Amino acid sequence: MPYELYYWDGIQGRGEFVRLALEEAGAKYIDKCRSSTGTQAMMEFLKGSHGHDQTPFAPPFLKEGELVVSHVANILSYLGPKLGLVGDDEKSRLIINGLQLTITDFIAEVHDTHHPISTGDYYEDQKAEAKARSTAFIRDRMPKFLSYFERLLSANPAGKGFIVGNGLTYVDLSLFQVMEGLHYAFPKAMRAVENDYPNLSALRDRVAERPAIAAYLKSERRLPFSESGIFRNYPELDLTS
Amino acid sequence: MPYELYYWDGIQGRGEFVRLALEEAGAKYIDKCRSSTGTQAMMEFLKGSHGHDQTPFAPPFLKEGELVVSHVANILSYLGPKLGLVGDDEKSRLIINGLQLTITDFIAEVHDTHHPISTGDYYEDQKAEAKARSTAFIRDRMPKFLSYFERLLSANPAGKGFIVGNGLTYVDLSLFQVMEGLHYAFPKAMRAVENDYPNLSALRDRVAERPAIAAYLKSERRLPFSESGIFRNYPELDLTS
Repeated sequence: MPYELYYWDGIQGRGEFVRLALEEAGAKYIDKCRSSTGTQAMMEFLKGSHGHDQTPFAPPFLKEGELVVSHVANILSYLGPKLGLVGDDEKSRLIINGLQLTITDFIAEVHDTHHPISTGDYYEDQKAEAKARSTAFIRDRMPKFLSYFERLLSANPAGKGFIVGNGLTYVDLSLFQVMEGLHYAFPKAMRAVENDYPNLSALRDRVAERPAIAAYLKSERRLPFSESGIFRNYPELDLTS
Repeated sequence: MPYELYYWDGIQGRGEFVRLALEEAGAKYIDKCRSSTGTQAMMEFLKGSHGHDQTPFAPPFLKEGELVVSHVANILSYLGPKLGLVGDDEKSRLIINGLQLTITDFIAEVHDTHHPISTGDYYEDQKAEAKARSTAFIRDRMPKFLSYFERLLSANPAGKGFIVGNGLTYVDLSLFQVMEGLHYAFPKAMRAVENDYPNLSALRDRVAERPAIAAYLKSERRLPFSESGIFRNYPELDLTS
């Protein structure tokens, strides 16, 4: 039985971190909201129509039989061992989950660069505040997160090329997506610092070349980045000099 | 050997969600940064002095022997089974972790009511934006999160009084802290809606009366809310009418 992934139609968003793991592992899954009735079916879960234990707060969520798992880090923590994308031991799993939660926080900050005041209002209604927040993000927050991951990649005693241990984990896939997204959203800011993060850049390239990921990126299943997602290319929020 | 909790000295902050679980269970733990050398020891971990596998991005983190677990939800997911604060089955644990991650998102939004532009700057430098964000938070986001938890509490088929199943979990303890914090930060806004969330209010009272929690709340170990924490009482950000 294939996994069922529920996420807003038409955008990569937070769902993309789950898609990358499923695609890398060659797992069978249905991206529910890409069918005509999927979004309506998703809303029924959010409304609570399927009962207490199947009522996520928000997408993405993964359904497998009667089990509904919500939040990216929770889904990946659940799928990781099944898909061979995390080590077998408890210590590795705890470290990997901690890193995925750091990415979760980072992504929330990326989102708030274009929505610093109100998620329910348009970007156009909070442009001045978005510029202020993006400036602080590019100056302070982005380097803080990226240098953390760069440092772990360079200090991994088990081998070069992965964030933990000597094999690919779902956090490596998520870091690929983070780097892709930042280059899309803030191309000038990222070009200005590209020499600061050689291990992250190399990881990005290596993940893109993995056969399953390369095939996915060329397929229709990979949605494009857009200004409806988390990573948005608003040139006025990027570095201007 | 007691657990070692590392968190910024002097505030409840995110560390409080971990403290409440340890206190309810009567677990032995050391709140490291309340000793004179604790903060310096914590900074060594953040700098990476203890090696790749013991380098959290930020506090809180929990140390047990050579294991360092970071992020509240990860710590609670690890401690939950050991402390008897989550069900034994995988399904319960996944649902509980998903709920804790929803609380994590909620708490990040609470933080940004007073820091919508830049974490590195003072509240006083972003007061106008904080007022705009707090207005949207009180109007849109707070009811969205609280009504979600209220709905799950009222719909729990296993029994009244807990968010999942028929016994206390760490999410119930975290919801107590959320309600305490919101009443501290936004007393007028919370009074205005108190009839909307009877199950959350009852849960808050019941948790406060549990013997271990009641003893903790009266002790010096429970730090007060303050304007250095996540929940801050700035009257100008509360409802003004």
